[in-house]
Amino acid sequence: MMKQFLTINDLPDLNQAVNQGLELKKDPYKFESVGTHKTLGMLFFNPSLRTRLSTQKAAQHLGVKTMVMNFSNEAWALEFEDGTEMSGLRSEHIREAAAVVSQYCDVVAIRAFASLSDKEKDEQELVLKSFIKYASIPVINMESATAHPLQALADAITIKEFNTKKRPKIVLTWAPHPKALPHAVGNSFSRMVQLLDADFVIAQPKGYELNPEITGNTPCVYDQKEALEGADFVYAKNWCSYSQYGKILRTDKEWMLTQEKMKLTQQAKFMHCLPIRRNIVATDEVLNSPNALVIQQANNRTFAAQVVLKTILENG
Amino acid sequence: MMKQFLTINDLPDLNQAVNQGLELKKDPYKFESVGTHKTLGMLFFNPSLRTRLSTQKAAQHLGVKTMVMNFSNEAWALEFEDGTEMSGLRSEHIREAAAVVSQYCDVVAIRAFASLSDKEKDEQELVLKSFIKYASIPVINMESATAHPLQALADAITIKEFNTKKRPKIVLTWAPHPKALPHAVGNSFSRMVQLLDADFVIAQPKGYELNPEITGNTPCVYDQKEALEGADFVYAKNWCSYSQYGKILRTDKEWMLTQEKMKLTQQAKFMHCLPIRRNIVATDEVLNSPNALVIQQANNRTFAAQVVLKTILENG
Amino acid sequence: MMKQFLTINDLPDLNQAVNQGLELKKDPYKFESVGTHKTLGMLFFNPSLRTRLSTQKAAQHLGVKTMVMNFSNEAWALEFEDGTEMSGLRSEHIREAAAVVSQYCDVVAIRAFASLSDKEKDEQELVLKSFIKYASIPVINMESATAHPLQALADAITIKEFNTKKRPKIVLTWAPHPKALPHAVGNSFSRMVQLLDADFVIAQPKGYELNPEITGNTPCVYDQKEALEGADFVYAKNWCSYSQYGKILRTDKEWMLTQEKMKLTQQAKFMHCLPIRRNIVATDEVLNSPNALVIQQANNRTFAAQVVLKTILENG
Repeated sequence: MMKQFLTINDLPDLNQAVNQGLELKKDPYKFESVGTHKTLGMLFFNPSLRTRLSTQKAAQHLGVKTMVMNFSNEAWALEFEDGTEMSGLRSEHIREAAAVVSQYCDVVAIRAFASLSDKEKDEQELVLKSFIKYASIPVINMESATAHPLQALADAITIKEFNTKKRPKIVLTWAPHPKALPHAVGNSFSRMVQLLDADFVIAQPKGYELNPEITGNTPCVYDQKEALEGADFVYAKNWCSYSQYGKILRTDKEWMLTQEKMKLTQQAKFMHCLPIRRNIVATDEVLNSPNALVIQQANNRTFAAQVVLKTILENG
Repeated sequence: MMKQFLTINDLPDLNQAVNQGLELKKDPYKFESVGTHKTLGMLFFNPSLRTRLSTQKAAQHLGVKTMVMNFSNEAWALEFEDGTEMSGLRSEHIREAAAVVSQYCDVVAIRAFASLSDKEKDEQELVLKSFIKYASIPVINMESATAHPLQALADAITIKEFNTKKRPKIVLTWAPHPKALPHAVGNSFSRMVQLLDADFVIAQPKGYELNPEITGNTPCVYDQKEALEGADFVYAKNWCSYSQYGKILRTDKEWMLTQEKMKLTQQAKFMHCLPIRRNIVATDEVLNSPNALVIQQANNRTFAAQVVLKTILENG
Repeated sequence: MMKQFLTINDLPDLNQAVNQGLELKKDPYKFESVGTHKTLGMLFFNPSLRTRLSTQKAAQHLGVKTMVMNFSNEAWALEFEDGTEMSGLRSEHIREAAAVVSQYCDVVAIRAFASLSDKEKDEQELVLKSFIKYASIPVINMESATAHPLQALADAITIKEFNTKKRPKIVLTWAPHPKALPHAVGNSFSRMVQLLDADFVIAQPKGYELNPEITGNTPCVYDQKEALEGADFVYAKNWCSYSQYGKILRTDKEWMLTQEKMKLTQQAKFMHCLPIRRNIVATDEVLNSPNALVIQQANNRTFAAQVVLKTILENG
């Protein structure tokens, strides 16, 4: 019984989910009657392209109706704190909003990014956890402060599609970016690969180590080139500092992914969740190479969402 | 024949509509073929959560397709005055906009709040009335300057569901709020209760009396506690001054609904249209009590919209 | 095989398309199964009322699902230049965005207006052409920098419906407007009428001549009244200067369309793409006259979009 999908660990079995995703990809409309008379609410507190469209497409495949809302400009500003006097700008409390949405929808999916200013609140996952607390329907995470599990499941499906080794070497490497970005994708990818039979290494500059509670026993090295050696999959992603929460510690290009660096690998596949800044995170050459899987990853977002939605609806 | 739903008085028979709503609630998809090849246009000039989602859900229940537009940021600014030289910021006249939308939709639903700055214009219901004038299809009010009849119908359904008396005492009480709010909900609730067999009292501070043309013979008292005594239903709602149009006359908490005040009632059910400011309009204790019906009211919005849409489509 | 609809000249045969539009208008849902399991992505970089609703309606008629996105506030800012270091405000490159959208949709329709500041870039049709370059699905122009072919096809359908002559006189006349407007509608109407058997004249003040590569052999005169004499159809439209690109050269009302000027015609039908500024572009009297076809043109937008979408889907 999956009543929420907050992190990749909410899946009862990652391998089974990956196989389901690959089956659905072969025949996307096979379960079109699963969603008859079901409605998915999609609530956005932040921008979205892939997540918005792929989740809608997944719902269409399953015959589920969608209702999309951009909270930032279409609805009321929400209050998440309990017990406050609501005399400020926030007109509606999450208690009511979540309970109300629960009556119009069968499942609700929510996107609410990290603030990157208040580590404690971000780690409490205030928005997502409040919806779970006060909603009476299952909640799907479409990227929260600390996790992006639909992306991680799509990444797992993509790795399964392209992997040729019994135990591939998978590298998650930090890469440069002009803006402070959240840790959600890095976190979820780390959690996911830890569930695979893989040789997993994370490379990042000093000060950019991810939350050690999430990376666990995964080796976290400071030498990108050493990490890339012999890699089968290279996942590039920027995130801001976790220890100096929200800070950008360096702006140089030393960690940008180049074809020269990719030569250190075993003709590794290059992965990124998108959107990606070209010639900042990775060069045009890397992204235009046949080894880049970024478009396939985006395609698999549909089937990842479809697995999650189908599992939830069949449980219900 | 219902060709427009501007106020609750446009319903041919309130009791019948309430009963239809309760029937639809038992079997929401019973009339799913009523809306085949029909399209509802939903035009928003203001934010919306419940109205947006419940009206879409009602349409889904009836098999009606919806097209949602946020006029404020997705379309052209509209001119509502006749005969003007349109040399300013408004690119499109309501004459064209309404006639054009009439060709893409079978029914149009519109949300356009009061300005609260120009009483005369607000009372003319310029936006809604202009759409009615120039559209060739039925128009549904999703909250206009002076009325919110979908809310009032949902409230009537909720009262019917929870009422145990032959002639219940129903109290509409003004409550505090930091912002100047419209009279639409108070007006429509007043009009609706006047159609019920009920002992109806409105309580408000001096200067906050609603439009006497709408409250009619309903006793309007200045003593909230006196009004609450023996009540079966307490409907709390803020509105700004009507006589000193758009003004906030007091900011104290004396009129906030508390559990202590609710003890004066006959274990009254507590109602509010939402969104509600907790610990300003009513305390957490009141809202978290099993006597609070606010979530049920929001649920009944779907069936209120469904009754209205079904009645209009069947007439067509 | 129509894989893109960028200008009216992408239609294999205008007359056939017009006839198809008129057939679809008689029985809009006749081909409702054409779109089963097909999805149209609609991407807006600019406001839209008619285009948004009529294209959605066309999709509904064909059983095609739509996914609508407002790029300006719902997604990431896009980079269209190749080879740049993406260190600025633009988070995603069109290469990825177009390839990704191609996986969620079967057809994509795009609205991206002219900048009116950079003639060269506008004429390159950077946004539309970049989508075509990097997308793997057909692209429909919902108004680009230099063309609005869905409007032109709807105009052709409307002319066919109302024409009573073997060879009608059709006049496209520039009209005043307080803002600098693009040439897209003027261009597409000119291209379209050149494909008809008609006596076609364009009238505009000095300095407002359209791109001569588009107007070709069409007489372009400076005397509006001379042009209007004997006209059967008068299409009014403002555009900014093409030679002094983006400039407004005059703000007087001499070129406004009035009933008096319309008396010079053969009881001509009055056409405009909407939105129209009343008493600036044309007087109330002209727009309220039974000879005004502006609402019928808007209605035919649905069938124009339906012809284009159906042709593309049947080719696929």
